Amino acid sequence: MSLLELRSRLSEINALNAANGMMHWDQQCYMPPGGAGARATHVSILSKMAHEMFTDSATRKALDAAEKEVGGDSENEALCRVVRRDFELATKIPTALVAEKAKLQSEAHEAWVVARKSNDFKSFVPMLEGMFELTRQEAEHLGYKDHIYDALLDQYEEGATAADCRAMFDVLRDPIVKLVKDIKDNGKATSDAALTGDWDIAKQSKYTESLAKAIGFDFERGRQDVAPHPFCTGWSIGDTRITTRFQPYLGSAIFGTLHEAGHGMYEQGSPEAWDLGPLAGGVSLGIHESQSRLWENIVGRSKAFWSHFLPSLQAEFPALASYDLDTWYKMINQVEPSLIRVEADEVTYNLHIMIRFEIECAMLEGSVAIKDMPEVWNEKYKDYLGITPPNDSDGCLQDVHWSMGLIGYFPTYSMGNLLSYQFWTTMAQDIPNQDELMAQGNFAPIHNWLKQKIYSQGRRYAPKDLVMRVTNKPIGADDYLKGLTAKYREIYSI
Amino acid sequence: MSLLELRSRLSEINALNAANGMMHWDQQCYMPPGGAGARATHVSILSKMAHEMFTDSATRKALDAAEKEVGGDSENEALCRVVRRDFELATKIPTALVAEKAKLQSEAHEAWVVARKSNDFKSFVPMLEGMFELTRQEAEHLGYKDHIYDALLDQYEEGATAADCRAMFDVLRDPIVKLVKDIKDNGKATSDAALTGDWDIAKQSKYTESLAKAIGFDFERGRQDVAPHPFCTGWSIGDTRITTRFQPYLGSAIFGTLHEAGHGMYEQGSPEAWDLGPLAGGVSLGIHESQSRLWENIVGRSKAFWSHFLPSLQAEFPALASYDLDTWYKMINQVEPSLIRVEADEVTYNLHIMIRFEIECAMLEGSVAIKDMPEVWNEKYKDYLGITPPNDSDGCLQDVHWSMGLIGYFPTYSMGNLLSYQFWTTMAQDIPNQDELMAQGNFAPIHNWLKQKIYSQGRRYAPKDLVMRVTNKPIGADDYLKGLTAKYREIYSI
Repeated sequence: MSLLELRSRLSEINALNAANGMMHWDQQCYMPPGGAGARATHVSILSKMAHEMFTDSATRKALDAAEKEVGGDSENEALCRVVRRDFELATKIPTALVAEKAKLQSEAHEAWVVARKSNDFKSFVPMLEGMFELTRQEAEHLGYKDHIYDALLDQYEEGATAADCRAMFDVLRDPIVKLVKDIKDNGKATSDAALTGDWDIAKQSKYTESLAKAIGFDFERGRQDVAPHPFCTGWSIGDTRITTRFQPYLGSAIFGTLHEAGHGMYEQGSPEAWDLGPLAGGVSLGIHESQSRLWENIVGRSKAFWSHFLPSLQAEFPALASYDLDTWYKMINQVEPSLIRVEADEVTYNLHIMIRFEIECAMLEGSVAIKDMPEVWNEKYKDYLGITPPNDSDGCLQDVHWSMGLIGYFPTYSMGNLLSYQFWTTMAQDIPNQDELMAQGNFAPIHNWLKQKIYSQGRRYAPKDLVMRVTNKPIGADDYLKGLTAKYREIYSI
Repeated sequence: MSLLELRSRLSEINALNAANGMMHWDQQCYMPPGGAGARATHVSILSKMAHEMFTDSATRKALDAAEKEVGGDSENEALCRVVRRDFELATKIPTALVAEKAKLQSEAHEAWVVARKSNDFKSFVPMLEGMFELTRQEAEHLGYKDHIYDALLDQYEEGATAADCRAMFDVLRDPIVKLVKDIKDNGKATSDAALTGDWDIAKQSKYTESLAKAIGFDFERGRQDVAPHPFCTGWSIGDTRITTRFQPYLGSAIFGTLHEAGHGMYEQGSPEAWDLGPLAGGVSLGIHESQSRLWENIVGRSKAFWSHFLPSLQAEFPALASYDLDTWYKMINQVEPSLIRVEADEVTYNLHIMIRFEIECAMLEGSVAIKDMPEVWNEKYKDYLGITPPNDSDGCLQDVHWSMGLIGYFPTYSMGNLLSYQFWTTMAQDIPNQDELMAQGNFAPIHNWLKQKIYSQGRRYAPKDLVMRVTNKPIGADDYLKGLTAKYREIYSI
């Protein structure tokens, strides 16, 4: 009875969130410029309604009662567990602080856009100081045991801590810095210049959709549209949407689509019985990213994958017809230390994240003043990547996250990278012929394995528990480093 | 203070309605098949929330208080007047009856789809009987003075009555039946077969958008998408959306777009200060239809309009290059008594409406049994249009309205037709060179006149008052019959 009441209450909040999700999707994909003002108003009203409805004492009452009721049923126990977690996250921070941060977010975001455009970090400092201060307050309300960072990270990756991140990066740092250096000093580079051109947009759209379809993104229960930045969203298992963009670099659409389709298939793979309820969808940002990176990098940048798709790619884009499989494989796996995270290759990517994590910790601890961020940033880029940003716009101003108050978010990208290899390596025990299947264009066994082990679990198990259940070990860098090193040493003949 | 409270309450309801509006738009334009189930759930939850929030006693209290507060301010008085009207319409019908009708609507709609497909009126009779019965109950709750029909019609066209409709159709019947007969017996027909072909969809889309833009539909504050049935929707003055469809008959996209752009420009023309509030938007279905029909028929099917656009049309669609202006003008104005309302030409259209109105009255009065509808329907088609439907699918099963419980709705189409000519004739007093302007492709003076007189009035005046303010007389058939007769006697050389 209480469970029913809880579910009914949550279904109203779910409908409000679905409305907001669609408004966000539409804003990115179709909204005419004149719609912006009303959209902001509508989203703000609907968000407020959803937040108030969820944090109302009636939710707590229904949840308290439901928790007493479900003993023994593990699915309903899981439901209560995730609702409890969401409820605590939503109610621990005082409403006044939520409102203050929301206000600062919109101001800071605007200030960031201006500062980045005009390469003026100084003008952004007061906003950033305010944002770190409010986030620090948030963390105190959320509570933590060891490090203030833990409270923030937990919002995005349940149970993960700064110590986990430090351990992860400590293992990654040297081998990756060394691999990057080896590649730079001794590797045989292959030009990927041919990937940049004036590619037909309709063809890109058609071709990337065919790739998404091939790996198992269900277009009967989803679609792909064009947006300025690729993302995945959705409001039911039957309606999950991805976006892509078309740029001079053809890989942008191809690998972007595989990445978002990875997110999308995870969402599409929740059990139907859980649709519109709290157990449906992805369990954490790190696990979500592991699914997108698995399809983007391990599958989409593999030689086996392209042994199947290169002919159709070359038929669609004749300018690429002269490259053999081996050359093409090297072209799409070029490693180049660069300034911009979102354009980084698979090898250097985690170094970008490591830098951000170290800076976030220093800022939160107060060991470095926010005004000094550019120096720290540039030093770390020099140390880890061997390059120095010529300006702050391509340096510490490049990411939107901090202006939105998303502090403690970045490490989930690296966790996703590690986990993608960890899941893939585990899968190989059940499916030893992964390469052979990909070369046949037969992705169903791989998709089904992921669906059974991960997608269909939704939010049932906490991320750490899920990783343990699937791979029999906690998150680690072994599989990742082993896979990455083998792949790139071969590609660069080192 | 009370007014502020009322506005704040209404703004939440507005956001819920906007969300529902977007969900409807998306469902028609983009939603993948798998999204249908969740969409129905979300829409039903959001509708229920909006209805409950609006009909809550807190709204009544705020409204009661606001009404006392606004004396003297005519804009706020108007605001209270329309909210009071909406509130009474929403609260007079008991919740149980609303729910019962909603349930029957979804069943009856499904039954109608099947019945129409299989030409099986008999199977639809129980649903239709139920729908008329529930609608009768609704009317009793809404209340009326003279005829039960008045209560129903008033929902769509404030203040209009069955007597008004009867008077309107009594004036229309003989002259139109005679005009149709004259055209058939003595008119010189021009084949419009060349309008049907395998037209390029991208070209149709581009060309119809250029027409909508030319007459003043603002694409910075709106867009056009493709949907199975053309419609206009929106959720702010800055975001009004129209849809079109592409069929073998080229006129479908061209005149459909002009029609929906007419609706759209009305919505876009509300004062910005009223955006998201109760005074924004169209005041009634009849006035709304007058705006769509004015642009579709009076402007879009005029010789002057095409003297400007024919060259660009022929450049885009070379298959039409051989027709001179005079022939083209006749081609797009062919009159042909036909079975299907939505495909009817301008002259016969009102006969289709008249038949539906007469049948609705008879059904509501109980003077004809619902099971006998096909006979009555077919007799009337024989009498007024001189043709007999070969089956019920193309006869009394053709319209979706009754299956949705939209009884008392049809006459607003005819009111729109009459008013389009009445407004146009009034406009000619201020803008005597309407034809000259259209021939120049200069639609701004016409658009601005409509904006000033009608669009910018939003829902401020009741429809009857608006008509009186703009045209100095109540709705009548004079201008319509005069304009129509002159136009078609010339076209058919009779």
